[in-house]
Amino acid sequence: MNRRQVVVIAVVAVVVVLGIGIGIGVLIERERAVNPEARQADEAMSDRIMNEINLDNIRTNLKTLTAKPHVAGTAADLSGAEFIQQTWLDQGLDIVNILPYNVLLQHPPPPTSPDRNKVEIYNPSDPSNPLFVSAALEDAFGEEDLLQDDIMPPYFAYSAAGDIHGDLVYVNYCSMNDLEYVNNTLGIILQDKILIAKFSRLGRAKKAYNAEYYGAKGLIIYPDPDPEDHYFNEKPYPDGIFMPSSGTSRGSLLIKTGDPLTPGYPAKEYAYRLKPEEVGLPKILVYPIGFGDAEQLLSKMKGKEKPTWWSGGLNITYKIGPGFAAPYNNFRVRILINSKLIRKWTYNVVGYIRGEVEPDRYVLIGNHRDSWVLGSVDAKSGTACLLEISRVFGKLKKEGWRPRRTLIFGSWGAEEFAIIGSTEYTEEFYMNLVERAVVYLNLDIAVAGDYVLMPSASPHLVELVLEASKKVPDPRPSTSRKTLYDTMKARNPENYSNPESLPYVPMVSPGSDHQAFMYDVGVSCISAFYFMNFNEVWQSFYPLYHTSYETFRLMDEIIDPGFKTHLAVAQFFAEMLRRLSDEYILPMNVELYADYIHSQLQQFAYYSPPNITEKLADHGMTLDFLQDAISNFSSAAAHFRDSLAKIDKAKVLDVRRINDQMMLLDRAFMNREELPRLKDRQGIQRNVLFSSIGLGPFPGLLAALQLKDEEQRWRSVEKQLAVLTNSIQSAATTLVDVTSW
Amino acid sequence: MNRRQVVVIAVVAVVVVLGIGIGIGVLIERERAVNPEARQADEAMSDRIMNEINLDNIRTNLKTLTAKPHVAGTAADLSGAEFIQQTWLDQGLDIVNILPYNVLLQHPPPPTSPDRNKVEIYNPSDPSNPLFVSAALEDAFGEEDLLQDDIMPPYFAYSAAGDIHGDLVYVNYCSMNDLEYVNNTLGIILQDKILIAKFSRLGRAKKAYNAEYYGAKGLIIYPDPDPEDHYFNEKPYPDGIFMPSSGTSRGSLLIKTGDPLTPGYPAKEYAYRLKPEEVGLPKILVYPIGFGDAEQLLSKMKGKEKPTWWSGGLNITYKIGPGFAAPYNNFRVRILINSKLIRKWTYNVVGYIRGEVEPDRYVLIGNHRDSWVLGSVDAKSGTACLLEISRVFGKLKKEGWRPRRTLIFGSWGAEEFAIIGSTEYTEEFYMNLVERAVVYLNLDIAVAGDYVLMPSASPHLVELVLEASKKVPDPRPSTSRKTLYDTMKARNPENYSNPESLPYVPMVSPGSDHQAFMYDVGVSCISAFYFMNFNEVWQSFYPLYHTSYETFRLMDEIIDPGFKTHLAVAQFFAEMLRRLSDEYILPMNVELYADYIHSQLQQFAYYSPPNITEKLADHGMTLDFLQDAISNFSSAAAHFRDSLAKIDKAKVLDVRRINDQMMLLDRAFMNREELPRLKDRQGIQRNVLFSSIGLGPFPGLLAALQLKDEEQRWRSVEKQLAVLTNSIQSAATTLVDVTSW
Repeated sequence: MNRRQVVVIAVVAVVVVLGIGIGIGVLIERERAVNPEARQADEAMSDRIMNEINLDNIRTNLKTLTAKPHVAGTAADLSGAEFIQQTWLDQGLDIVNILPYNVLLQHPPPPTSPDRNKVEIYNPSDPSNPLFVSAALEDAFGEEDLLQDDIMPPYFAYSAAGDIHGDLVYVNYCSMNDLEYVNNTLGIILQDKILIAKFSRLGRAKKAYNAEYYGAKGLIIYPDPDPEDHYFNEKPYPDGIFMPSSGTSRGSLLIKTGDPLTPGYPAKEYAYRLKPEEVGLPKILVYPIGFGDAEQLLSKMKGKEKPTWWSGGLNITYKIGPGFAAPYNNFRVRILINSKLIRKWTYNVVGYIRGEVEPDRYVLIGNHRDSWVLGSVDAKSGTACLLEISRVFGKLKKEGWRPRRTLIFGSWGAEEFAIIGSTEYTEEFYMNLVERAVVYLNLDIAVAGDYVLMPSASPHLVELVLEASKKVPDPRPSTSRKTLYDTMKARNPENYSNPESLPYVPMVSPGSDHQAFMYDVGVSCISAFYFMNFNEVWQSFYPLYHTSYETFRLMDEIIDPGFKTHLAVAQFFAEMLRRLSDEYILPMNVELYADYIHSQLQQFAYYSPPNITEKLADHGMTLDFLQDAISNFSSAAAHFRDSLAKIDKAKVLDVRRINDQMMLLDRAFMNREELPRLKDRQGIQRNVLFSSIGLGPFPGLLAALQLKDEEQRWRSVEKQLAVLTNSIQSAATTLVDVTSW
Repeated sequence: MNRRQVVVIAVVAVVVVLGIGIGIGVLIERERAVNPEARQADEAMSDRIMNEINLDNIRTNLKTLTAKPHVAGTAADLSGAEFIQQTWLDQGLDIVNILPYNVLLQHPPPPTSPDRNKVEIYNPSDPSNPLFVSAALEDAFGEEDLLQDDIMPPYFAYSAAGDIHGDLVYVNYCSMNDLEYVNNTLGIILQDKILIAKFSRLGRAKKAYNAEYYGAKGLIIYPDPDPEDHYFNEKPYPDGIFMPSSGTSRGSLLIKTGDPLTPGYPAKEYAYRLKPEEVGLPKILVYPIGFGDAEQLLSKMKGKEKPTWWSGGLNITYKIGPGFAAPYNNFRVRILINSKLIRKWTYNVVGYIRGEVEPDRYVLIGNHRDSWVLGSVDAKSGTACLLEISRVFGKLKKEGWRPRRTLIFGSWGAEEFAIIGSTEYTEEFYMNLVERAVVYLNLDIAVAGDYVLMPSASPHLVELVLEASKKVPDPRPSTSRKTLYDTMKARNPENYSNPESLPYVPMVSPGSDHQAFMYDVGVSCISAFYFMNFNEVWQSFYPLYHTSYETFRLMDEIIDPGFKTHLAVAQFFAEMLRRLSDEYILPMNVELYADYIHSQLQQFAYYSPPNITEKLADHGMTLDFLQDAISNFSSAAAHFRDSLAKIDKAKVLDVRRINDQMMLLDRAFMNREELPRLKDRQGIQRNVLFSSIGLGPFPGLLAALQLKDEEQRWRSVEKQLAVLTNSIQSAATTLVDVTSW
């Protein structure tokens, strides 16, 4: 090589090496500079979280939580809140606040008080020596847990108080049909009578409303062991899950939710409070007894025999009354209720794990902390799972991992009284939630049986629910049922006659802490619990519901020995929580929402008067515009899914945009004006698609169709049809491209 | 060098060159990969846009727009909309939609019709030969523009129609005080009388309401040339801007805004419509005349002389009546109104320039397209500017530049009737706006004088308004007044006694197209117009308001020859539009909002009854909680500004988060429940801070304080105090850190 050649080679070498270096530099920087805001979820976290959830911890949680009663407004309300706060702080949550609300509750006198609530049969000539007095408490069966001082005696919260005397009339389930039959067909005057009715089929609050509507002054409710109600081949407590003779279900008589004195606003110190007489509390005395006590009462009845279709399961002849047969003809029934309305503090506990990338997007999970007695089912089975889920996310956070979005854990007070804590929370932080809440997951009861998981969800979340259920092993698998999903598909399909049918995942129904999120704020929700074979308790809930027998032992020895069911429920919620809080694109399918609204339109025909289309036409109306709006919504949803598939994932604001469209979808179905109210005791209804009071699909329209006055009815129907059409149309415009509406 | 040395050198050289290469590569990639979503606004665009705005274009726009009347519901409504649509498409906007609404308007018979609206004085013995008939149209002064066929005759929209006869009573301004004086002090029965009142001080709709309240069946309104009203040293049209003898101001009598038949919902085909009798339209006949005609009527009056403080500017003795003096004692006054309520289509035009980075964040600017006659002031001076602003942004877009956020240009229909078009738009797209609207800028009248720019804005936008006004040269500068800001500071300071005082920028008041955005949706707003010396017209608006004399010539020769004022207004709006749509961090200062609420609390004392604190205490109330909430809001705002200063601008979602907090702030002051209504003709009020009906600060509280029934009043005050406290507290929680509330 001559010198020139050396120079040429050297230059070429330098250029080549420099080029290689530049290339390496570009790659290094490109790797380093991947926008952390555009990060994809680490799928490995799924197994990590699932494996971390520990059933022994859940069992320990439940044992701790059920050691004492936690009735809202008692000292245990605050101490329970402080326990949750400390637990969450120890687990590593970033911030945990206790939020107090001063709300109207009603507590009974202690069971040992001479003034205690009771039912008596007495001879008016010797009233101080009654023939029968209802039990003060349920049998303790010698169990230490049930021999504690502060076991809440059976009662119904918000009953009228007083001392009433009268003749007893048996009214089956106290439905409007039942009362109409007794009143109109049998001609028994119900005015000023004391009614006695079986527990199941319709809620206690509706029974009370109906009885009051017919002028009765008292109502006694008992759990009849009728197989039609909720009897099945199980032993009674303490040996099984059936109701023993003294078992009595407590509960609230309110139909409206939230603190009764501060509707629509948080029960803070500055709140405007209604006077109790403005609330619309029941004016009737309503009291629960066990079927053993009921047998004492009913066995003395006279009068017409019950119709065969009013059969009960007691070993007596059911008669309707009024009053008693010989030799008790002149005996009377007394209800004494000395429960006191009282303003008390209740507490929410709210803990945060701050989202790493989108801290202003909230994935909430909550559960109520109060229970009527020990509450091993309702709702401490849920609390036990929640505390294990929070432990796992707290641990991961301590190790340096955070989900994309903020996790908010809620422990609500006073759910049993009127879903009070969670409602006050949504009222206080309405703006924060309406702007930023992605979803609310509700864990009330986690485990009430061992048959099948029963989830419910906003329509666009059903896919997520099913996918999560596929990831979780069945607690009692068989060869054909390996996952929760398999068991749901086998035991609770959408359509029993189709073996390919998906598991049934209906819309969340009201009645627990998701209610205010779903129906007042418009936050999408998921709820789920593991239940017994509902075919065996089809008219009712689990038999020991709201009794003192919801003990730790019940769960540990009878319902979920080994806690595998709890584990499955906790894993199921944890997986949904992970995906919702961490996946870059929210796991929501808006096309399912469109399908759902289509199906609601079909359902509507079943709920409305016969020949509804013709009747609307007679009054100059048509469903055409509604159908157009639903079609528009479907098209918008389909177009949205297309554009979602094409999105450039490097652009975090583009992803945020489509996530916001999904997140806010449920908000569009909240009407700004109140929907028609059928009963003055109902709360304000705003959701145009779903009823929080069991009316059926399109509740504003259905309520309008039930208005008594003919002219008012059709004007209201016309209005509600327009309101519904407008909401669906409005939802559609939020899904189309953001510069094309 | 031995071989080994050569190898060593070569290796070192390779390493060094490779290292240099890697360094270069990293820098290249780093430069290339700067996240375009985190781009800063290009400040050079400011001058670029300012310089591009062209006053000749604005003049041409105005000339085109004012060639014909554009009354809502006439053929010119749609043709005007199509003109705007085509213009915007030609200018390069991405999408331009025409949105139709079918709404209730009222048009008068043509001026040539034998049934035309009029006022007469007649002798009952010879009614077909009236002594006086009001003019059908204002004088045209031979101007071609005013000799067109479809000049809208003077009338008040939504007056009752009919043919009424009665005695005339002069009632000064027809305020409640005036009517009380005539009725109670003078003892003149107003029931079934026809009243005549001066135009200024309070709005025509309130005058009509007051007259109806006192039982009058008719009301005539005329523009008295009283210097106390709006007289000043100017010549009347066609030589100047003062009202000529026949000049008559048209307008609407509605207090509620939006289509009267579809309150709260868009006037689409599917809408539910009230019956006209359910709307609460005036039941009284109300008609406008010029002061020339008024002189004819008033000069014949008899009865008590006016109090000195009722002076007018006509060359007659003002008397109160009722009825006429000799020789007209038995003569009567007639009002004939044959205006017809009619459902008509009106149209909004909405055009988009899609935002490059955040297309789902909307910066809106709008203006109404309808005018009572030619409307060179109201509102085509605004339209002329708007079309030039859209041209400039369209041109930049064609050249490849887009703002960060989406620009939405709106041309609203039927504003003059009841702010209908923009209200229907917010009703139809409520969800889209509530979720995504950053701000709405309203351009109604752009130029009505040459004295000073009068802006108004949501409190946190005042800083932006002032900064923009500093960038725009004054149209008629002096050595001390170089910019709009200088002139505003000199001519309209917050505080005249303080030479350092800032220009006065109050909260936007209701009454134009921003009303629904601000008061129904809670979108922050800015409005502005260039006005004459308001000290000269302090009781009224500009003299030729809503007359046919709002001609192109008026603007071109008298108000703004050379169109420099238009240029300044267009530049001012364009600069705000640019900053709001393009700056990475929104130009909003939430601390100003806190200051504003503090000042509202002080103002509140002036608007409420004397000794309000003591009176509240007498009823068990305190302002302490409200003050606490305001303090909390101030702390949250201060903390927010601190955290804003520290934000990592490389994180686009962090910036989005704080932008959303600012963008959504005004939403928090919208109460979900309606605030108390004082008059059934008012629309629904929701904004707890600002009144859309002129009540003063904290309008819910002020309305409650005015309730007649003593007990109801204090309960309502208690509630509204809590509602207000809750809203401010709620706003504070939206400003604190998103995981610390």
